[in-house]
Amino acid sequence: MSADQNCIFCKIVQGQIPAKKIYEDEDFIAFHDIHPRAPVHLLIIPKLHIESLQHVDASHRELLGKMLVLAPKLAAENGAADGFKTLINTGPAGGQEVYHLHVHILGGKASA
Amino acid sequence: MSADQNCIFCKIVQGQIPAKKIYEDEDFIAFHDIHPRAPVHLLIIPKLHIESLQHVDASHRELLGKMLVLAPKLAAENGAADGFKTLINTGPAGGQEVYHLHVHILGGKASA
Repeated sequence: MSADQNCIFCKIVQGQIPAKKIYEDEDFIAFHDIHPRAPVHLLIIPKLHIESLQHVDASHRELLGKMLVLAPKLAAENGAADGFKTLINTGPAGGQEVYHLHVHILGGKASA
Repeated sequence: MSADQNCIFCKIVQGQIPAKKIYEDEDFIAFHDIHPRAPVHLLIIPKLHIESLQHVDASHRELLGKMLVLAPKLAAENGAADGFKTLINTGPAGGQEVYHLHVHILGGKASA
């Protein structure tokens, strides 16, 4: 696993920074967003440091697909069984704040 | 390929309803959203009729991963090279309007 020493999400993966973790497997961790913008606001991040969606290639297909299959499972388990939004912000004009690929899961009534 | 006779996106896939198509391969088509909510607003849909992200399983990983790898390529080719958002709305509380899985690509200055 490649990690970036200056990346806050790599530090969460490595346990150097705490997070309200809800899930972990060999490829991903998921946790509650520290600044929730919806009643349910989760983040899924790959353990692998990938800067953004502009930095993926065909070798990442399996990982990215697994991430999207995981999203509805975590949404349902964490209070968004009726529906949710999955959002990936990419690049400066896409509003990306942390340059470690992550998917937002936004659910609960206020996000409808 | 499984198609739903009442699905507007299946009809676009089959050429029965016109769309401003920008891309097609064996698994996906992409086109401009008919009601753009950003200067660049594209949709990528799998040709396979999958109702929503709540209807996927591990067998869809490769397809979903391919869809996310395709997104930045289409964004860059269609005016959103500086960044973009990828959004999947799932279920009634997630604001899903068409029940055929699709990813929105939103880019251009107004989406920042």
